[in-house]
Formats: sequence, structure tokens, C-alpha cells
Amino acid sequence: MDEIRIIQVGLGSIGKEIAKLAMEKGFKIIGAVDINPELVGKDLGEVLGKEETGVKISDSLKETLSKEADIVVNSSISWLEKLEPQITESVKAGKNFISTCEELVYPFPRYPEIAERIDRLAKENNVSVLGTGVNPGFVMDRLVLALAQNCKKINEIRVLRSGDASKRRLPFQKKVGIGMNLEEFKERLNRTGFGHVGLFESLRMVSDALDMKLDEIKEDIEPVCDGERVLGIKQTASGVIENKPVISLEFQMYAGAENKDVINIAGDPPINLEIKNGIQGDTATAAIIVNSIPNVAKARSGLLTVKDFV
Amino acid sequence: MDEIRIIQVGLGSIGKEIAKLAMEKGFKIIGAVDINPELVGKDLGEVLGKEETGVKISDSLKETLSKEADIVVNSSISWLEKLEPQITESVKAGKNFISTCEELVYPFPRYPEIAERIDRLAKENNVSVLGTGVNPGFVMDRLVLALAQNCKKINEIRVLRSGDASKRRLPFQKKVGIGMNLEEFKERLNRTGFGHVGLFESLRMVSDALDMKLDEIKEDIEPVCDGERVLGIKQTASGVIENKPVISLEFQMYAGAENKDVINIAGDPPINLEIKNGIQGDTATAAIIVNSIPNVAKARSGLLTVKDFV
Repeated sequence: MDEIRIIQVGLGSIGKEIAKLAMEKGFKIIGAVDINPELVGKDLGEVLGKEETGVKISDSLKETLSKEADIVVNSSISWLEKLEPQITESVKAGKNFISTCEELVYPFPRYPEIAERIDRLAKENNVSVLGTGVNPGFVMDRLVLALAQNCKKINEIRVLRSGDASKRRLPFQKKVGIGMNLEEFKERLNRTGFGHVGLFESLRMVSDALDMKLDEIKEDIEPVCDGERVLGIKQTASGVIENKPVISLEFQMYAGAENKDVINIAGDPPINLEIKNGIQGDTATAAIIVNSIPNVAKARSGLLTVKDFV
Repeated sequence: MDEIRIIQVGLGSIGKEIAKLAMEKGFKIIGAVDINPELVGKDLGEVLGKEETGVKISDSLKETLSKEADIVVNSSISWLEKLEPQITESVKAGKNFISTCEELVYPFPRYPEIAERIDRLAKENNVSVLGTGVNPGFVMDRLVLALAQNCKKINEIRVLRSGDASKRRLPFQKKVGIGMNLEEFKERLNRTGFGHVGLFESLRMVSDALDMKLDEIKEDIEPVCDGERVLGIKQTASGVIENKPVISLEFQMYAGAENKDVINIAGDPPINLEIKNGIQGDTATAAIIVNSIPNVAKARSGLLTVKDFV
């Protein structure tokens, strides 16, 4: 394949990791977009702590999309409703689109109309759109489905992703409530942008792929505390058939939690897997995005999911 | 997709597991072939311990291929040179082809000419051909490549598949030398059909996909003994760059060995995974074959590998 030309949109910590890795892997970043006034106008290389690149960071997606590029790599936001205008603009400009947006990983059940619009538009413009990352996008869905291929029969799937939140970057710590008191935690629960986004998406990707007809999905989020002080969160989602859980996903991220990912498939054969120390989230997400770029660039057109690559 | 119609070729223990599972999963077996005189002429259902199916086991592949079917499922042999005529005949009859043949899982390095012939013929006939199974086909290659997507950088990959051979079926025990004395073991080493087939294929699939330019591949096979009595084997394959192993695959299968699969990727991030009790080989191979049938039936034409589904 010829050199792949990228427009990087979003230069937060993950976006910077993606851009650095993409350059190291030989992709060509020909445009960069961020709305942060501290970044706009600067050379991308300077922001990445690298040599000058000649690419100036722009606050205009529209202007940047007028350049020749193969794919837009977007790490700007977790929420699909807010991302949709950016997808629309990129796809209409004839660019493939890959994003860390958690809700884009499997948008069909929660946002069927947005998903359909994106799929149609992508097909009309002969490009592909994919949301991916380590979670959602790998540990709780794609890896589970790859393992499930080994089973003649599956009775129940349980996945635990556990991590010591105190070892993660600060914005992540805030997202899981570290250092709040219980009062603040409860107040924050009612706002978006709190907790982990993606359990529902992973759960439905797995249940749909394995043709499990769920009666109900139960979701829960609670604080893990030391007295009044919040150490982090436990979030769960479980898919239920006839009052029995058939898929349970548990995400726990608090100060002092063990780092590990565990998948248990009760079936024939049973599969019980543990990833010691877990898969480090930020690094892995950047890697998955960059490693997926060639696949997305050459994939069939439309709205894809990581299921297409299982 | 409409009901998928299958011709099952090879009714050894794996072939029977495949046929049973395919029927349970709602595929329609419309033909069955085996050269074993004890099976020829019998109803497939009788051989599977199920109800009568109306499908009589034939010893003629040619005759059976004249029936309308979507895919040939072949579990007749591990060796590609011996399998090629069956692939050719099936593909010319317009059938997709999936097989447990270990050497078909990644035939390009060892049999480039056969691989090219199969690929060309499959494309001419607009069908696809795939070799898969649990090993090669999953634990040491496809799963490794799926995990590798999480890494920005990989320094070294080590995979161990370890199993207690005394718990496996008799033909498998013979293949790993259980109960032989050392003399017999050494004598058998010089013949084909002994030991595990597929380490080389897995190793090259991984190194090619990750663009590792190996200087050399070292392969070794040795007995595990209790005095003069052989308990099973240890087989290794390692890919070397500048005298350092970058991929090491170890397959140990002997009476009393621990059942486990272990993957260690030294990289950024590092990934260290263990599947407790391992993935049971025969059951998982039957499952992978059956679960792959719909993918193969709708895939692009040509000679595929499981890499196409990572």
C-alpha cells in the first residue's frame, strides 16, 4: 500500500500518543486539528516533543479536510451525538474515519438512527468508519468473541477488567471519582462524562454476535470508598435471559485495585483466561488505533465494527 | 444467509465432532465422504450416533461433489501435498473449502507453488479456501496477532502450549510417542505423521504479519522420558534475528504435563496471558471449523488465512 496520509483530530493525551506512534510507524500526518487555544497555530512536532513537522495545528476541521488525506483519526470525544457532525463532515470530504469514541464502537442498539445515517453516508462516499480502542474495542468484546470461536456451546461469559486508578493519568482519575467525597460522587453520577463509557456497547456487541436473545440488560455503578473518601468505581453490566445472567461485564478502577483482565467462558470447552497486570489502557488504545489504520483504509465501505476483524 | 449446505470429507474423530456440531448448529450436511470401508455405505446419522439422515457415506469425492453444496469441510489429513488433489477437485466443482489440515493454515513459506495454485484456482472459481483449527489457527498465531494489536512496540513473543497427553484420545497419544521406548521414538522421528504439525506455520504467520525479518528459524523435537519410557514430546520453533530469539513457540504434550496455554509479549505495553487448563484441542478445533463456516462461505475468493479474520 502507498503511504497512508492522516489527519489527526484531537490532541489530548491519547491523541498525542496516537500521532507520535503513527509517525514512528511511517504514516504521514498531513493535518492536525484541536480547538485548544494553547495548541492552535503551533507546529505539531513541537506539541509532540518532536522535530518540526511543517504541520500547523488548526482549529478548523473544515479547512483541514480540504487537504488530500486517506483517513481522519479522531480522538476528540466519547459521545456519539457530539461526534456525529465531525464524522459527517469527514466522510463527505471522502475520508475514511477511525475514532476512540467509545459509543462509536458499537452504536447500533443505542443510536440506531445515527448508526444508519453514518453507514449510508460512508457507503455513498465509499469510505469506512470504525470506532475502536482497548475497552470498548478489545478486552471485553473483540477478545471475548475471538475466544468464543473455540466453543461448541457457551453457557455464560464473565469479564472483569480491574485496574489501579491511582497509577493512571489525572483526567482518568477524575473520571472515576478519586479523591471526591461521597456527596460529590453522587452529584457527579447524574452528569455525563463520569465513569467508564462502553460496557453497554461491549455487552451488546458480544450478545448480538453470539445470537443471545437477552431479556434485559442491567447496569450499575457504585463508588469504592475508604470511609467518606472515594477511591474509584465499580461498574457492571449484565445481560439476562430468564432471570439468569449470561454475560456479566465488570469494570473496577480504584486506587489500590489489582491490575488484571479476566475472561471466563463457561462452555464446551470452558475457557478461563487471565492477563496479568491487565492491558495498559492508554498505550494500548493508541496502538490499536494506529495498528487498525491500514485495515480501515482498505476495508469495505460503511460503518464497521471490530467484529468485522474477529 | 440461506441455509448452508455442507459436504463433510473425513469422518475420523475430529470429522465426526465437526459433523455433529454442524448439524446441531443448523447447517445441512448433504454429503459425506470417507475411504474407511467400515463406514462406506452407512447412513451418516448411524456413524454419528444420531438419527438417520438419509446421507449415505460415499468413498467417492468426485461423485459427492456433483451435488449442490456451498462448502466442503475437510478433516482428512495434515499434509498439504496429499490434500492438494482434494482441494483442486472441490474448488473446480465450485465449492468453498475449509480444512483442519495444519499445513494449509499458512502454506505460503513452505509450499509457495501449491499455495499459488490454490489461490489462483479459488479466484477463478470464485470460492474461498481456509485452513484453521486451535493449533495452528488460534492459540499460537491468531490469538497472538489479536493481542499484538495492543502493542506500540514488540521486542519478543513467547508462546507455550502445554497439555497432559495421557488425557487425550489414543491416536493423539501415539502421535506424541506415549509408551514407546527411546529407540522406537528415534526411529519414528524420521517418518512423517509424528509429532505436532504447525509450529512452523504459526511462527511464520506471526512473523510475516508483524513484519519481523527473521534471519533463521530453529526447530527442535525431543522426547520427555521416565527412564527409557517415553511420556510424550517437547517441540520448539524459534525465529531469530541477529542471534536473538524474537518469537519462540513451545509445544509440550506428555503424560503428566500441566494443561495451560501461555502467551508472553515483551513490548509496550507488555502482555502476559495465561489460559488455565488450556483450550481443549479436539473440541475447540471442531468448534472453530464450524464457527468459521459462515465467514468462509461469504469471504472474498482465494486462499485465505486466519490472519484475514484477526
